[in-house]
Amino acid sequence: MPGYRFKLDLKVRDYECDAQGIVNNAVYQNYLEHCRHEFLLSAGIDFNRLTRDQVFLIVVRAELDYKTPLRGGDAFWIGLNLERVSPLRFVFLQDIFRVPDQRRVLSARTTGTAVNAKGRPALPAELEKLFAGAAKT
Amino acid sequence: MPGYRFKLDLKVRDYECDAQGIVNNAVYQNYLEHCRHEFLLSAGIDFNRLTRDQVFLIVVRAELDYKTPLRGGDAFWIGLNLERVSPLRFVFLQDIFRVPDQRRVLSARTTGTAVNAKGRPALPAELEKLFAGAAKT
Amino acid sequence: MPGYRFKLDLKVRDYECDAQGIVNNAVYQNYLEHCRHEFLLSAGIDFNRLTRDQVFLIVVRAELDYKTPLRGGDAFWIGLNLERVSPLRFVFLQDIFRVPDQRRVLSARTTGTAVNAKGRPALPAELEKLFAGAAKT
Amino acid sequence: MPGYRFKLDLKVRDYECDAQGIVNNAVYQNYLEHCRHEFLLSAGIDFNRLTRDQVFLIVVRAELDYKTPLRGGDAFWIGLNLERVSPLRFVFLQDIFRVPDQRRVLSARTTGTAVNAKGRPALPAELEKLFAGAAKT
Repeated sequence: MPGYRFKLDLKVRDYECDAQGIVNNAVYQNYLEHCRHEFLLSAGIDFNRLTRDQVFLIVVRAELDYKTPLRGGDAFWIGLNLERVSPLRFVFLQDIFRVPDQRRVLSARTTGTAVNAKGRPALPAELEKLFAGAAKT
Repeated sequence: MPGYRFKLDLKVRDYECDAQGIVNNAVYQNYLEHCRHEFLLSAGIDFNRLTRDQVFLIVVRAELDYKTPLRGGDAFWIGLNLERVSPLRFVFLQDIFRVPDQRRVLSARTTGTAVNAKGRPALPAELEKLFAGAAKT
Repeated sequence: MPGYRFKLDLKVRDYECDAQGIVNNAVYQNYLEHCRHEFLLSAGIDFNRLTRDQVFLIVVRAELDYKTPLRGGDAFWIGLNLERVSPLRFVFLQDIFRVPDQRRVLSARTTGTAVNAKGRPALPAELEKLFAGAAKT
Repeated sequence: MPGYRFKLDLKVRDYECDAQGIVNNAVYQNYLEHCRHEFLLSAGIDFNRLTRDQVFLIVVRAELDYKTPLRGGDAFWIGLNLERVSPLRFVFLQDIFRVPDQRRVLSARTTGTAVNAKGRPALPAELEKLFAGAAKT
């Protein structure tokens, strides 16, 4: 299992499951977003403060590989790593593992950027700093 | 079946169902909110414009009676009526019926008010006018 | 602050907020359901196992009083108490409080029952036992 | 604008927007799933019937390119095309366009398969037939 820059422990809530009895595909994006925001917060970057300041962190591309479904009551954790791909784009690499068997549930690659109220690129300095040490590709 | 001031036709989306194979209880509040906003829009009141203008329509009380569950693929319609209960509070009475058997799915009573950015009461004139003709209780 | 039979600590996830910048009204029902299921689990009653065994715990009425909205990043806790209202109906009384100021966010009363696959009343013995000690009204 | 095998008209519901005032990233997967299920239904394949028959249509990979955000009240439509990539995997290509300016909102590629209750591949004949005429890659 690779090392991660940030980890978050969570548990499936029953309403997140659909009629197949498994977590609905869209809900994993909720988990991943929450993990990214918690990571940013741990680094002193408050998503909601940025939004109020009209700095909008947005996702431009999401890739999700679904490996094993989560079910109601399952515990799981998310691991997060960073990658810098261009001056204006940053990438979150995230994996979800089921507890306690550590089986891989999902792997995702989310590419983001930041824009101002006019939709113009506006990467805040604190985000630049955060991704300065990230692997480049 | 009583008369309604506004009606909205909808259809269950499969992701709205939970592991019991029926629409999750919380989702009905989504349906009801969407119906209220469509009604307001039909009366020239745009919820999103009000929000941008810092007029916040908020719910202070919701009562929901669940009669028959909806399932994936079910069609249904919502009927809406108004009631004025006090200078600052207005009520939406909403019923959901399944199609085609017209069986009652849910009845709800939602009490709302409007506040400004400071949380002070701020009922916009257009809303006053809308509820002027509503039944009083 | 009253005593509670069960408490659950949670935190708002940003995707749970709507364009008003506050937790959407319907989401509180998600919180309340999750708290009820966690409580049941703590008492040895697994909602998902019951569902697989064709015992369906369902909500017949929900009453929610919205006091103070939660916002992105807010921490909160839910307190839960029980009440037995009739041979076939049981009630969950739940309050949500914001952390750290302990301001009341919401109070809810949720009436439930249990049915089998044919929709007939079917209160499992373990649930009878759980509510045996609850206040009667 | 390319031709599509299936189209679905929808409208943003306000609760689908988050604190940025735009439709939350995860919600687009809801829209896309609903469109796929409506398409399947139009071809006589009922997702919920398959689920009850223990044939589980599942997503193994999702790729989403976010171009322009949708906002509360926006109308939009989804176009869908098919692609057959292997004996066990089929692909839905979906694009979302805003109405009335026809601006591209999102492009997505969703790879699916079908499994039985034991997780073994189990592509139903009706799905084989549906994808028989699809472009191969």
